[in-house]
Amino acid sequence: MLSGYFPFWGASLLIYFAEAEPVLFVPQIEPRDHIPAGLRVQEYPWGDLKWSDPYSALVSAVGDELVRAKIEPEQAGMNRSAARTSLPIQAAEQIPIPEGFAGQLSALAAKPDAQCRAGFADLDLRKTWEEIAAIRLANRVANVGLQVFFENLQPGVTEAEVAAAVESAIYRQIGRDEIIHSRGWAMVQSGPNSADAGRFNRSTGRRLETGDLVLIELATCVNGYWSDLTRTSPIGTPKAEVARILAVVRDAQQAALSGIRPGAPASHIDALARDKIAAQGLSAFFTHHTGHHVGFRYHGPGFLIFPGESARLESGMVITIEPGVYVPERGGGARIEDNVLVTESGHEVLSRIEGHANGADDWCRRL
Amino acid sequence: MLSGYFPFWGASLLIYFAEAEPVLFVPQIEPRDHIPAGLRVQEYPWGDLKWSDPYSALVSAVGDELVRAKIEPEQAGMNRSAARTSLPIQAAEQIPIPEGFAGQLSALAAKPDAQCRAGFADLDLRKTWEEIAAIRLANRVANVGLQVFFENLQPGVTEAEVAAAVESAIYRQIGRDEIIHSRGWAMVQSGPNSADAGRFNRSTGRRLETGDLVLIELATCVNGYWSDLTRTSPIGTPKAEVARILAVVRDAQQAALSGIRPGAPASHIDALARDKIAAQGLSAFFTHHTGHHVGFRYHGPGFLIFPGESARLESGMVITIEPGVYVPERGGGARIEDNVLVTESGHEVLSRIEGHANGADDWCRRL
Repeated sequence: MLSGYFPFWGASLLIYFAEAEPVLFVPQIEPRDHIPAGLRVQEYPWGDLKWSDPYSALVSAVGDELVRAKIEPEQAGMNRSAARTSLPIQAAEQIPIPEGFAGQLSALAAKPDAQCRAGFADLDLRKTWEEIAAIRLANRVANVGLQVFFENLQPGVTEAEVAAAVESAIYRQIGRDEIIHSRGWAMVQSGPNSADAGRFNRSTGRRLETGDLVLIELATCVNGYWSDLTRTSPIGTPKAEVARILAVVRDAQQAALSGIRPGAPASHIDALARDKIAAQGLSAFFTHHTGHHVGFRYHGPGFLIFPGESARLESGMVITIEPGVYVPERGGGARIEDNVLVTESGHEVLSRIEGHANGADDWCRRL
Repeated sequence: MLSGYFPFWGASLLIYFAEAEPVLFVPQIEPRDHIPAGLRVQEYPWGDLKWSDPYSALVSAVGDELVRAKIEPEQAGMNRSAARTSLPIQAAEQIPIPEGFAGQLSALAAKPDAQCRAGFADLDLRKTWEEIAAIRLANRVANVGLQVFFENLQPGVTEAEVAAAVESAIYRQIGRDEIIHSRGWAMVQSGPNSADAGRFNRSTGRRLETGDLVLIELATCVNGYWSDLTRTSPIGTPKAEVARILAVVRDAQQAALSGIRPGAPASHIDALARDKIAAQGLSAFFTHHTGHHVGFRYHGPGFLIFPGESARLESGMVITIEPGVYVPERGGGARIEDNVLVTESGHEVLSRIEGHANGADDWCRRL
């Protein structure tokens, strides 16, 4: 976030000075061609044949750097939560950072945790124009996946086959435009399985049937920036008992979108969606928040679009709007989720691409 | 590992009693149909509309359970490292477990960490027959991906396109046999990029060319069990300067495999591979271990197959054998990695399927 760089591999660490240029520590194994120019890079040893404990070498290099800059431990803080946010973007599993590592670094950066976090909170929530461009790109790539989702909605195809096709389309974008990393996590739930989508998302071997609602939850990470989208689409004409669910979710989402502008309280946006659902007697089935921040992560930190949340939207924030209604007794559920930038004058939906299919919307428009 | 269950979603916790039946705590949101029968399941609240802090509820439920079983804190320990090993298998990003959580649990389970870990070490390293069957299945699914890799090796196709096709084939296996979860992470490196594969793995937009070596690193997770494989294959006849690399890596791997039996020291297996490479004057380019444990994770804990490692193989262990030689000056690198079960009488390669293509092997056999 502070450097425009995301780790591919291993564990990286950034020292961000108040006045001097930042220094990025990367392990020897890390590729270099995606590290922004103008960033001072220091490599630390990594490789099990020579270095059984690369983290000690990293701690000592960080210490040397702070001494050189005449920074006392009391003047330096550590953003511990960032260790969670920046999962290496290629990872199949987490890098196991040794338990003592945070403690060793604490001796060098002893500023209270809360003080350090406060400094990051605003940077996390209001995106710069470069960051917005990166989140827009992630959404454009995600839309390539969504189009494949709509194209694959055929009776007889399994949920997993649809999801696999979507992820594949997203991965294939690497090498186009400025895309050096692109990965999607798609989960498709159809028919009765769509009623579970308020609890969990996963793809099974169930084969799609005419009349089903089919829901896709799609996380997309492009060059380290995230999009979080959901679409719900009928196959053919949905069964009567689920058609109303889809229509109300679509109306609730449009109502919430219409209220997004700087100064609007999060609770107000939530209520716009929740009231539409309540008016249909379905509020017990809308079991989660209306939205959250997105962009640096799939689920960003910060306030939720939530009942009673008094925080207000500000321009530069990017949030999801994702009302959902899941009714096991009716054998179906629907959620529609977009990523929305709060602008000076209102909002812009980053995840809608002109001329692209949009599932529930397209169907509801025919009503 | 102790319950035969892997989390799909949220954060789960198992109490494993010395004498009573184990209790598994799962969040309300977790699917149930993959939880083994005969396991006592307790659900804890999860869902942001009602529960802002599900972890406190979990801690208090765990406390109640220990009180009921008359277990004092000094009699209970916590395997902290397991919190890392069991990443929810569908996750696009980590579940952010609050920092205070481990501390709260420590008050209930106060046995020294080292003591608790020691108890798990042997369970981690020697697999039961049920676990071996699960790792065998993961390798069988991975092989479906590898066949797609070989089929897609055509000049003009990008690395990312090949990798995407492999991952897609693996995901599509969900619903067949007893496969409820199947996900691959494939990274393909071709031509000069294959020379980077000793440092990092990633797919780029580079298009494959005749004469290239093409390397695939493939992590596969099926029902929570992992396979870790690498294949290197030429497109057409490899250029002379990389053909020798491929041949020596294949010979080194076969040499290491031939030595695997109970009682063999890890250092001996490593030397079998390393000496073959040294004999060709290439030891400076084999920059990593020869192998590691695999199955519960993509990279399992425990000793490495490594120079100087005195630990000995035992039956029931599953290890990778993965020598590699990467020579940037020659514009190519190769690694061949299999997953191998140590048996009573020797070993069994879990990742070779009769009648399947095997890349380097097939090419080397023609020499």
